[in-house]
Amino acid sequence: MQSIEEMQQILADVVERLGRVEDEAAIRRLHHAYGYFLDYCWYDEVIDLFAADGEAVFLSGVYRSKESLGRLYKTFLGQTYTGGRRGPVHGFLADHFQCQDVITVAEDRRTAKGRFRALLALGSHESRADKSPLLPDQVYEAGLYENDYVREDGVWKIKRLEYALQWQALYDKGWSHTTTDLPPAVPVFPESPIGPDYLLDATRKVWPERSPVDFHYAHPVTGRPIAAARG
Amino acid sequence: MQSIEEMQQILADVVERLGRVEDEAAIRRLHHAYGYFLDYCWYDEVIDLFAADGEAVFLSGVYRSKESLGRLYKTFLGQTYTGGRRGPVHGFLADHFQCQDVITVAEDRRTAKGRFRALLALGSHESRADKSPLLPDQVYEAGLYENDYVREDGVWKIKRLEYALQWQALYDKGWSHTTTDLPPAVPVFPESPIGPDYLLDATRKVWPERSPVDFHYAHPVTGRPIAAARG
Amino acid sequence: MQSIEEMQQILADVVERLGRVEDEAAIRRLHHAYGYFLDYCWYDEVIDLFAADGEAVFLSGVYRSKESLGRLYKTFLGQTYTGGRRGPVHGFLADHFQCQDVITVAEDRRTAKGRFRALLALGSHESRADKSPLLPDQVYEAGLYENDYVREDGVWKIKRLEYALQWQALYDKGWSHTTTDLPPAVPVFPESPIGPDYLLDATRKVWPERSPVDFHYAHPVTGRPIAAARG
Repeated sequence: MQSIEEMQQILADVVERLGRVEDEAAIRRLHHAYGYFLDYCWYDEVIDLFAADGEAVFLSGVYRSKESLGRLYKTFLGQTYTGGRRGPVHGFLADHFQCQDVITVAEDRRTAKGRFRALLALGSHESRADKSPLLPDQVYEAGLYENDYVREDGVWKIKRLEYALQWQALYDKGWSHTTTDLPPAVPVFPESPIGPDYLLDATRKVWPERSPVDFHYAHPVTGRPIAAARG
Repeated sequence: MQSIEEMQQILADVVERLGRVEDEAAIRRLHHAYGYFLDYCWYDEVIDLFAADGEAVFLSGVYRSKESLGRLYKTFLGQTYTGGRRGPVHGFLADHFQCQDVITVAEDRRTAKGRFRALLALGSHESRADKSPLLPDQVYEAGLYENDYVREDGVWKIKRLEYALQWQALYDKGWSHTTTDLPPAVPVFPESPIGPDYLLDATRKVWPERSPVDFHYAHPVTGRPIAAARG
Repeated sequence: MQSIEEMQQILADVVERLGRVEDEAAIRRLHHAYGYFLDYCWYDEVIDLFAADGEAVFLSGVYRSKESLGRLYKTFLGQTYTGGRRGPVHGFLADHFQCQDVITVAEDRRTAKGRFRALLALGSHESRADKSPLLPDQVYEAGLYENDYVREDGVWKIKRLEYALQWQALYDKGWSHTTTDLPPAVPVFPESPIGPDYLLDATRKVWPERSPVDFHYAHPVTGRPIAAARG
């Protein structure tokens, strides 16, 4: 029969492990909500998912702080997509199918990392009158996320969201005949009113050029780090 | 050192939290199974996923009771897709890619809500002889689910499945040049042998018109309700 | 008030159930990592996900042992896709969108089964010079997985991966006008240097012909076995 002390130890271990399971579920939920909000251009809700000092990386540009996140989501994307209107908007499509989570919670359960991917169906119906010339009529897009999370007062928030665009494909031509026309987000703010605060040291190449998006996680079986170059 | 009473409290809390984690897993499994069954037109298995008084909402029509679910799945969809044959059927495709779960279990763990989305690849191969004129040759479809679940005798079942079709895109034209030709399911039964029992008060508009599908969940970070109109 | 013996029983039950929840999470992570590795042709990492006596089923051929897995992934796929180069490679695309997990851990927690599905976007950009004539320019592919897993020294590994290709669709034509040109992997090794060790007794038909991929799991609500023929 177990002693009280042994039971206490087992119980403490269970509490720790259960907490980690709940952490992973909370982070998956956070990211899935992020995707649903993007569908409808609910950018206030998107920005609310970030920590106070959260940041997002988009087209190799870093948007740091809530103010900069507003510049990215509400000004840059929001104006391009719907002229700043809260969606859903007649004839505008920006579906973000999110899947394939790999989430790793740090030992101290205060931070975590997550990899996800998205397939986007983006564009406008031919009946839409007020579309931006910057928005293609219909395009598929695929991207990877490697995100950082932080737990504050028991609530998981996005600390750093990095969206690594992989490819776009014009609907009529496909990825075989599309060169993704999304250069790094230059110039930086305030030279550009939608620019990032600064650029990543190494800008990511996009289709048909490729840049690997390294795993921040060990190999599930070997436990070895995973990176583009295999040692 | 913890007292026995303290340990009992911790243990009771763990049992409760672990149960909720298992609930979420059971509901995700239930919905994923739903999708796999639809792929193959296994409608008896689909209907078995519902509670005895379960209902489904499709094209703004409500099918309430197992008998009505049979009318929706076996008569309406089953006849249109495969002439009532159990699939997979030569040259018929109805893949339902399910993803992006956001599941919320009620405080009492007797009910739950879940949001999911699906991408469908639907149609027939040109070699198929016996296809229905109502079935397009090849079409993409995207939809959102906001479902209710109930736990009966320890088993989670679908209480109410609401499929909110968002858009269809003819393969050859894409969403930019397709007007989704799926009106509300009128007239109701028995005037129509495949009609619903009644219609939703507000029918959902489909592409290129849009109707938001509100979240039944609080914002993951702020805890505030989420709805199309931001207060 | 609970007795110590009662608390011990509850605690033992919690430890067991929590372990099963962690098992499912580990297996989902394993499969999602599998998909991410395939995107980039990181085949050493793919093969490391298998148990020492693991096997993979591809085009109805069984590749049994690590050596045979090397023949499948590194020689067959790797040469066709990138001439054996570790990706990502300029102008080559092999995105594997993984979703819709249904995972069942055995009573003894030493083995498990998992169903998943994938949508693939596969091909080459027109600017790519060195592509294999065996690789189509741009094709969608969909497939189901029914996998077996084993837990060794606390680590979940792939025991048997069965990829059941469902359909391919040439981008320009779609699934309505594509006949999937992927016959069973014959002849076997060593007659073919990329052949499997042996063929399944019943080869799977592919699009527009169909073969059901049976569930290895009971119906989530009725608990009855699920199979193509409904008894």
